[in-house]
Order: sequence, then structure tokens, then C-alpha cells
Amino acid sequence: MSTTPVDLSHHLSQEARLRKPNAMKQIWRLARRKPNMISLANGDPHSSLYPIQSLTFNVASVAEKDPVATWRAGGSSAPTHTLTSSRDEASVLPVRTAFQYTTGAGLIETQQAVTELTRFYHNPPDHAATLTLGNGDGVTKCFRLLGSPGDHFLADEFTFSSLANAAVPHGIKWVSVKIDEGGLIPEELENILVNWSEERGPRPHVLYTVPCGQNPTGSTLSVERRKKIYELARRFDLLIIEDDPYYFLQYTSEPSSPEAEAAPAGSEGAVSSRGLAPSFLSLDTDGRVLRVDSFSKVFAPGMRLGVITSSPFFHAHLVALTDSSTQHPHAFGQLFLAELLGPAGWTLAGFDAWVRSLRDEYRRRRDVFLGFFETEVAPLGLVDASVPEAGMFVWTKINVERHPRFRREAGEAKAQGARTNCRQLMEELFELCLDNGLVVMPAWVFALPTDPKYDDPENPVEDRMNYFRLTFAGTEEAMEDGLKIFGQSLKEFFVEKPKPVEN
Amino acid sequence: MSTTPVDLSHHLSQEARLRKPNAMKQIWRLARRKPNMISLANGDPHSSLYPIQSLTFNVASVAEKDPVATWRAGGSSAPTHTLTSSRDEASVLPVRTAFQYTTGAGLIETQQAVTELTRFYHNPPDHAATLTLGNGDGVTKCFRLLGSPGDHFLADEFTFSSLANAAVPHGIKWVSVKIDEGGLIPEELENILVNWSEERGPRPHVLYTVPCGQNPTGSTLSVERRKKIYELARRFDLLIIEDDPYYFLQYTSEPSSPEAEAAPAGSEGAVSSRGLAPSFLSLDTDGRVLRVDSFSKVFAPGMRLGVITSSPFFHAHLVALTDSSTQHPHAFGQLFLAELLGPAGWTLAGFDAWVRSLRDEYRRRRDVFLGFFETEVAPLGLVDASVPEAGMFVWTKINVERHPRFRREAGEAKAQGARTNCRQLMEELFELCLDNGLVVMPAWVFALPTDPKYDDPENPVEDRMNYFRLTFAGTEEAMEDGLKIFGQSLKEFFVEKPKPVEN
Repeated sequence: MSTTPVDLSHHLSQEARLRKPNAMKQIWRLARRKPNMISLANGDPHSSLYPIQSLTFNVASVAEKDPVATWRAGGSSAPTHTLTSSRDEASVLPVRTAFQYTTGAGLIETQQAVTELTRFYHNPPDHAATLTLGNGDGVTKCFRLLGSPGDHFLADEFTFSSLANAAVPHGIKWVSVKIDEGGLIPEELENILVNWSEERGPRPHVLYTVPCGQNPTGSTLSVERRKKIYELARRFDLLIIEDDPYYFLQYTSEPSSPEAEAAPAGSEGAVSSRGLAPSFLSLDTDGRVLRVDSFSKVFAPGMRLGVITSSPFFHAHLVALTDSSTQHPHAFGQLFLAELLGPAGWTLAGFDAWVRSLRDEYRRRRDVFLGFFETEVAPLGLVDASVPEAGMFVWTKINVERHPRFRREAGEAKAQGARTNCRQLMEELFELCLDNGLVVMPAWVFALPTDPKYDDPENPVEDRMNYFRLTFAGTEEAMEDGLKIFGQSLKEFFVEKPKPVEN
Repeated sequence: MSTTPVDLSHHLSQEARLRKPNAMKQIWRLARRKPNMISLANGDPHSSLYPIQSLTFNVASVAEKDPVATWRAGGSSAPTHTLTSSRDEASVLPVRTAFQYTTGAGLIETQQAVTELTRFYHNPPDHAATLTLGNGDGVTKCFRLLGSPGDHFLADEFTFSSLANAAVPHGIKWVSVKIDEGGLIPEELENILVNWSEERGPRPHVLYTVPCGQNPTGSTLSVERRKKIYELARRFDLLIIEDDPYYFLQYTSEPSSPEAEAAPAGSEGAVSSRGLAPSFLSLDTDGRVLRVDSFSKVFAPGMRLGVITSSPFFHAHLVALTDSSTQHPHAFGQLFLAELLGPAGWTLAGFDAWVRSLRDEYRRRRDVFLGFFETEVAPLGLVDASVPEAGMFVWTKINVERHPRFRREAGEAKAQGARTNCRQLMEELFELCLDNGLVVMPAWVFALPTDPKYDDPENPVEDRMNYFRLTFAGTEEAMEDGLKIFGQSLKEFFVEKPKPVEN
């Protein structure tokens, strides 16, 4: 591992460079030179005026062998574990402390808890934790920290559009990297960087990617691809925003067992860490990875508390950005995490037991989904389904070429844009599913918003819109009923019917 | 009141104009045309996998005559009120619902609760609530929604610097408006707008102001000034960001009583609403006010949940901005508010009882502070203290002219910058206080970051840095001990001593 710190300060956005140091914090720094300083400085309501005496969370017990299965089977009588934070009594993070103002970095107790968690799974060299308001907040803060108007960022050509779109108002221009069932293709990334023409603008300096159970394609990057991509990042001075909300939902082919995965995280040459793929963070010797973690898929979306793990340099800038935008995360979630991971809570071992059990649950769900797919959809021969190794999505490819009305642009050499009517047919199929009572997410929702001028003329993305994202996060009834409607709609759609063709 | 909506869309920032509609939300809009749609679309973990069965909050009881005094006097045995939200049992906002993904606007139950609260105190015409992650998030979202690079925004010349500084990286330029003990001076605002030269850039189109217990000066705008400022806003097409965290800490001269304030909120010609000054929001017929409310001073800073009340037009844009940045607020606080204000909680009447009692508490604190000031500091004749009617700050003016080393620039006609050594002396006094064990907040921390080129050459802000902000939010011991040190430091400082003068 490199021991010389790499200077990556040139990656900061204009906005980050214009940010002024916080004058009030400078005063506090001065004040810290003496102990027992009396303060008439800060307008913090006194904790005796907080109307909250205690918060109690009744959470799932992790004492069972398979805690998620036990929790689901037990319903409202499942065994629970009680966490309490009181205003006045001893707890890891008492209400009195948790509900004060803190810096953008969050409360020290919670920072420590998430730092321990990250060390357990990723063991990164010299990185620091910045608490966020959840995944969306974490990723968009990275965009704002790194992207100036006119900058180019790279991303998977199909990605979660709410986040990709969020970069556009900052003047960030997206450059898409082709993907396959194994996720982002390193050779495609290399091609773009090697052949970049400065006429187009500055060469991309940030890669945004979702390495596990990618949204929408469900793909997971192999260790080999991760290493290749990280090497490309070093060679071309890229930063990597590793957005990894599905990290804990990596289900191996066999049910997980702690014994089989005894290799300590981050040990030299370890292929996996705790049975999970090594993150970009765990490979990051240079400090060029900003890893964004979320608890939304592990606990619940309403948590709205996550973490960015980065070099201390970017950490300091993320804290400054937090102080001058959202301010620090809410006490409720910080207190919840600190108590849950603390000695009277689940502890780290209990958390690991929960996520192992959760992985089994999602693998079970995936298999239930694929089982229904096998009976209701596959026999038509019109759709292929990916078999994800992580996350909650199946990316289904419609064999649009088999549709009677499918056509290619005849003979003419088109400079850019669609060469087939793929998208139009897919819009029809999507509408038909809706009419039949089923909502699915069509590929065009996820197409990275790029300048079509730079699309591949031989293989434009518009001609690859023949995918739908389906999820197995819902109930088994929804999977069964939904896939029946999906199969029925496909059957209707691929049978040529007299149909009014508009335009 | 005007019934024709005023088109204010030209106030949107470049960023807001570049924001793309959320494609996934468009899909959902399409899907809503049929009931009972089956969804395989969204990746939301099923609520049976949330490891939280219930949340219980033990909060202060508001059944007593003076609930805050009772709460403080009772310590850990004070009467409490229990709020519970369960995953599976009936509550205003069950865990099952609260912890799902929602839109940027937040959960409907919480939106309704805060809308009712706003109606109770402000009764604004045709406005909508957008939940925020607290005051800082609310204000900075308004900056991003309205400020393009090169835009000018107006603000009080001394203001909370963390927020004013947060506008700078967006390219917003501040223009300061002079203030006095009554807050922002309408005539100064008018002067700036009437005499604006387009050579300086576009005329300011946004005013950011804190109308009650202003931070740092503690001033509160009179009804007359509010009306004048609103009229200027209409005349010069300004929007007003009304940042009002101390609204509920307005203490009238006499202890509050519900009977004395029977006039319904928003009634024609009412000077006060619920005994509180009428907000800009309550005067807003045009939809040009974006009011930012916070619960940090009423409950606790760690709440990190607030609300922006604005016209439906700006509401829609704020929701889009939220969806593409922080995402919706945390479930914990949304659930807390919905249960607290709901029928099994405090209800609105109980909330009002709490804040009335809190106002009495802060008036009592102010009086305790001023009592110590009277004995420890005032007799020196070196400092004047403001007597705030709201908030938690006393703005103290040091009579710097009386210092033996105070001097004015001799004779020469300075084009710009300081004409006295006021700031230097104040930095010395600040350091002396620190050496003596006291932290106070010096005026320069709060000076609006403006271009000094446009400062008033006759009365530059640098020569008005002879103020310190002191707070009475802490304990009585801190007030007493702190003011003793303050008095002692002043005494030492104003007595000429042989002192090494650097440079």
C-alpha cells in the first residue's frame, strides 16, 4: 500500500473552493485552548428544556439462529430487544447529548459506531466517516463537492435516474460507460478515457458506479473488474463514487454461514471480506474512493441516515458542505444507531447476524421470483431474465426483434439516434402492462442523461431500451400476480392484432 | 387580498430551471390511473423486514398550568406523556407507513400536522408546506432555488454567518441593509433599491431576514416595519425568505395568557396573532414569502425537522429540489410530530400551552441575565445591552470610543475601509475574555460577507464591530459567572496598562 498521500485537491468543485471557513467554528477552536471555559456564545437551548425524557425502540431480537426468518414468522409476537436512550440516565448516547447541536460530522458516538462498522467490513486505510441524511444526500453531496459546471462524470449507461438527474442542474455532463450482465465493462471505460478528445471538454475525472446489485440491472462487479477499474482510476486520475446501498444484500449461492468466511476483512489477497465482495473502498490506497453507505435496505428507507467514507481530505470538505447545507443528521437516527450497535444493543456481531439472515431472505425472494418467472413468463420465449447475485432487481430483456412490427431503418447511413423502432414498441408494451394492471419500470427511465451527439452510432442506446426492471422486494402475492400479468401482456403484445397505429 | 396569482417564476435559479422532472414519479403518475395496480416497479424493502416494532417517546406532559416550569422543576420525576407508534397497531403514523420511501414533500400525515400548525398561527392564504431537515436545510434550499451565480440577495448587515456564507459558493452576492435596535430599517432597504445601479449587476430580487429575536442582535421587527418591508417587496418585486426560528420565543412584557389574546389569527387588522407578531407569511397576498420554520428552539436542535411554507409554485420546486438532493425527511421526526400533534398526543392546544410556557421561561431567563448584567457590567459605563423581546441573545455595544488607545484616521479622505481602530481593539478585548475563561461571539463573526467596494464610506461596517453577542440560553451559573468575567475583562481592558503592542 502506498504510504505517500496522493494530492487530489484539484478534484474539488468551484463551489467547494468558494466555501468560506465557518467563523463560529474558528471561535470555538480558539476557545478550546483552555479547559472549563464559560460560554455565553452559543444559542443552544438548554437540555432541561427538551420535552423528551426518553426514547424507546422495540427492535427485532438477533439472538436467534436466523433472526430475519424468526422476525417475519413471529409477526407482532416475535421476540424483541429493547433499546432506550434517556435524557438523564446512562446510555451510549443520552437524549441530553444526542439532541444538542453538533458539527456536520455528527455526534462522536455515532461516528465511532459507523467507523467500527466500516472497519469490520472494509478495513480501509486512513479513511474517515461523514454521516449523511441517507444515500441520496450522500451521493448528491459528492456531486456538489466534485462537480463544477462543464465537468464530465462517468457512469453506467443505465443507472438510478433520480440521482443521475440530480447532477445535471450543477452543470455536470454525463458520459455513459457500456455495461453487461457483469456490470460496468473496464475495457469500455478505458476506451473512453484513452480516446477522449479535449474538444469535447475536460476529460472525466469522476466515476459514479453502483458495484453490487446495480440499480436497475441487478449486476455485481467481479473482483477482477473492480481491480481493473481501480487501476484505470489511478492511471487516469479518476475519483470513484462508490454508491453501494445493496452491499449487504449480496447473497452467495449457498446460505451464508459465519464459519465458512473466517478470513479477516482486508487481509492481503482476500477475495472476499465477510463473504462479501471487496469494495472499492477496501482497495483504495490513494484516497480516491468516496464510498456511500445506506441503511435503507438493511433497516428501513425512513432511517434517512447513512455515511460517506472517504479520505480525511474529502471528509473535511464534506463536513464543511454539510455545515453549510443540511447541517448535521437528526438525533433520532444517530441515537438509534449508537444504541443498536452499542454494548446493550445488537452489537456489531448482532448486526452481522441480521444482515447474514437478510441476505438469505433476499436470496429466497429472488428464487421465489425466478420460480414464478419460470412458469409464467419464460415459456413464451420472449423475455430473458438476469439472475442477480445481490440487491432486489431482475433486469428483463424483451426480445423485441421477434415482434411482427419491429423494423430497422432501411439502408440509410444515420449519423445518430435510433436505428430501430425498439423504444416505440417498448412504450406500447409498457402501456399495455399498465392497462392490464401492472406497473414495471421501463429502461428509458434509467438511461443516463447524456448528449446524444456522443452516442455510439453503431449501437445507440435508444435501440437498447428493450428492458424492464422488476423487483422482488414486495410480497409473494405481488410477484405471482404481477408476473402472470406480465406474461399475459407479452403474449397479447407479440401476437399481431389489428391495432390502430397512430402517426 | 389579491385573487389573481402573481407570476413569480422569473425568480427561479439556473439550477432550478435545469432540473429535470423525475422520470420515476412520472411513471407513478401514469400508474395511478387505475386502482389496485400491482407493482413490480419500486425497490422498497417490505415493512415486514423493518427490524423496528415500535417507537415510544416519553415527553413532557402539557396538562399543567405552566408545563415548562413544571417540567424543569420536576426533573426526572416530572409528569410525562407517552407517545407510541407501532409497526402493526393503529397510530396516527404507524412505523409500517412512516418508514417507507415517500416523496420529497414528506408523509401526508406530517404535512397535514404542520399545515394545521401554520394555519393556527399564521393563517396564510393559499400556501403549502414542504418539510425540511431543519432550519439550515430550509434556508439553504431557498438559496439554491432562487439564487443563480451573480444574483444579489439582501440581508441584515449582521446576521447568522453560517447561513449567509452558505450562499456564497452558489455565486450569490450579498448586499447589506443597515439595522437598528428595531431590526432591518425599511428606509435603508428602499434607498438601496431606488439607487441601485445596474452597472453593479442585477438588482437584488431576494431579501433574507430574521424578523424575531434576530441572530445576533436580538431585535424584533414591529408590525409597521413588516408592512413597509412587504410593500417594498411588492414595489421592487422582491421575494422574502422569512427565517423565523425564534418566532415562538417572543415574550411580551407580561406573562402570556390565552384569554388576553383571543383575536383569531389572520383576522383583518389584527396586530398580533396568538399574542405573537404577524409574520410576513401572514401578510403575503402575492406568494412572495418563503417562510422557514424550525422546531430546534421549541423542542431540541437534534430534531432536524422543519418546514418551509410557500406558494404552491415554489412548493413544487422545493419538492423537486428535495427529491434530487436530501430526499424526504427522516421517519423518526415525522412520526414524532404527527403523534405529538395528533389526538393521542399534545394536540395543537397542548403545543400552544407548551410554547406559551416556554416564552415565559425565556423571558425569565432574559430578566435573570439582565439582572446580572445590571450588577456586574452596567456600572462600569462601558457597555450598553439591548433588551430583546424575543429569542435568546443580548447584543451588547462596547463604548469603544472611551478606550485610551481608540483613534480615528487623521484627516485623510479614505475612499473605503475602516476609519478607526475599532476592530483591532475589539479583537484584543475578545482575546482578553478568552484568557480570562469566557467565550463570547464577536460582531465580526456575523458581518454579512459583502464586497467592501460598496460599503458606506461615511460609516463603514468595520468601524461598527464594537458588539458582542451574549446568550441567556445556558444555565444561570454560566450567566452569573460569565458576566462577572465579562465585567472584569472590560475593567482590565479599559484601564491603560503597559502592554506590548505588536507590529
